[in-house]
Amino acid sequence: MTPEQAANAKKAAAYYAVAKFVQPGMRLGLGSGSTAAFAVRALADRLNKEKFHLASVVSTSMETAALALSLGIDVQNNLTQDVRPIDLTIDGADEFDIDFCLIKGGGGALVREKLVACASRQEVIVVDETKAGVELGHLSPLPVMIVPYGWEITKKAVETVCGRTSTLRTTANGALFLSDDSLYCLDVVKGAIPSPGVLEEAIKKITGVVDVGLFVNLCDNVVVGYADGSVLEPVKSAGAS
Amino acid sequence: MTPEQAANAKKAAAYYAVAKFVQPGMRLGLGSGSTAAFAVRALADRLNKEKFHLASVVSTSMETAALALSLGIDVQNNLTQDVRPIDLTIDGADEFDIDFCLIKGGGGALVREKLVACASRQEVIVVDETKAGVELGHLSPLPVMIVPYGWEITKKAVETVCGRTSTLRTTANGALFLSDDSLYCLDVVKGAIPSPGVLEEAIKKITGVVDVGLFVNLCDNVVVGYADGSVLEPVKSAGAS
Repeated sequence: MTPEQAANAKKAAAYYAVAKFVQPGMRLGLGSGSTAAFAVRALADRLNKEKFHLASVVSTSMETAALALSLGIDVQNNLTQDVRPIDLTIDGADEFDIDFCLIKGGGGALVREKLVACASRQEVIVVDETKAGVELGHLSPLPVMIVPYGWEITKKAVETVCGRTSTLRTTANGALFLSDDSLYCLDVVKGAIPSPGVLEEAIKKITGVVDVGLFVNLCDNVVVGYADGSVLEPVKSAGAS
Repeated sequence: MTPEQAANAKKAAAYYAVAKFVQPGMRLGLGSGSTAAFAVRALADRLNKEKFHLASVVSTSMETAALALSLGIDVQNNLTQDVRPIDLTIDGADEFDIDFCLIKGGGGALVREKLVACASRQEVIVVDETKAGVELGHLSPLPVMIVPYGWEITKKAVETVCGRTSTLRTTANGALFLSDDSLYCLDVVKGAIPSPGVLEEAIKKITGVVDVGLFVNLCDNVVVGYADGSVLEPVKSAGAS
């Protein structure tokens, strides 16, 4: 896909999800990343046009909060009791499988995204067509958020558990990436993840690891956008809970 | 114990441990808290008197690093490859049991303390006589370090797993406590912990938890100081690994 086609696909999925799932009076969660940003724009468009009220909106990153604010959406930047329980969260993903398990964290916001997903009654994932896999791990690296202190030791432990190498994430200008929660991010190289839940647990156990971008049993609906502007809602595998 | 007696006991343990376990040329780790601070003073005294060289010294908190620097010890504040592998770490604890399992984190530095303990060939714990228990949990609250975002949800999940209430730690002036790694600290109220390893794993699994102050199979030696200035080295239970 060209960048224009990818943008078309993401936009289609985001606008479809906001039109279908958002209801007046809801407590909403907003994800992070390029597709989730289209959902924020779609939400602002709908609110401007239909003039309905939402009970609350909470953001999973400073970046998403800034975008929402710039579009006139009254957004909270922490998961306080004022914004919970969340009725619906719309977020993106780097990859999803037939059980709707996800790899997330390409944008570095996975810790807040997972906390919001856990606090949400319904988690809707919007993606473009390149994010669909039968088995996780083939399409994108696996992000792991770690405490900066002692990162080299934690990196080695993560690589041992995963059986693969990883890189410490840097920003476009070569500086070390630091998340909104002041964490470093390891990207474990691509490779099959036959048991996402088992790997999630093993990585989370490592001293120095805060969380890993494997989301298991947290996603309820997936909306896939295509380059031609069409969308599809795949059905969750009957084997998934 | 009076505060003076407690200081005597801590000082006795710290000076004994530094005299017995520190060898020239070692890579050292320095713990945090009031007893560990006596160990830093004991180390400075020994270095001043005996003029030997250490390969490296790494600190588990900004506070310990500042103390060490003020006493002329050349200390690193990160667990880089320059300071590893650590030959010996001397640290304090809030409580230890007959298997040398520990509760740590009263000082709020448990994340770095655990990373350093994991990277140390020998971990020596210095405590006063009030810290000894047959079973963990009866003497001190259990600290849990968590991501600030969504802390109320994480608190509830920690309380469910522990079966006890907790409080979000504040400083002496009533402000929220924030660790060197920008984390909040929950203190779970006292109560029996029959299986420290099982509870550690269950708490660490919770989304939003970074680590918990249960140290299992990380402590090699304990030095207990008494108010009269005497010290004792208890023997690890034969059942412990």
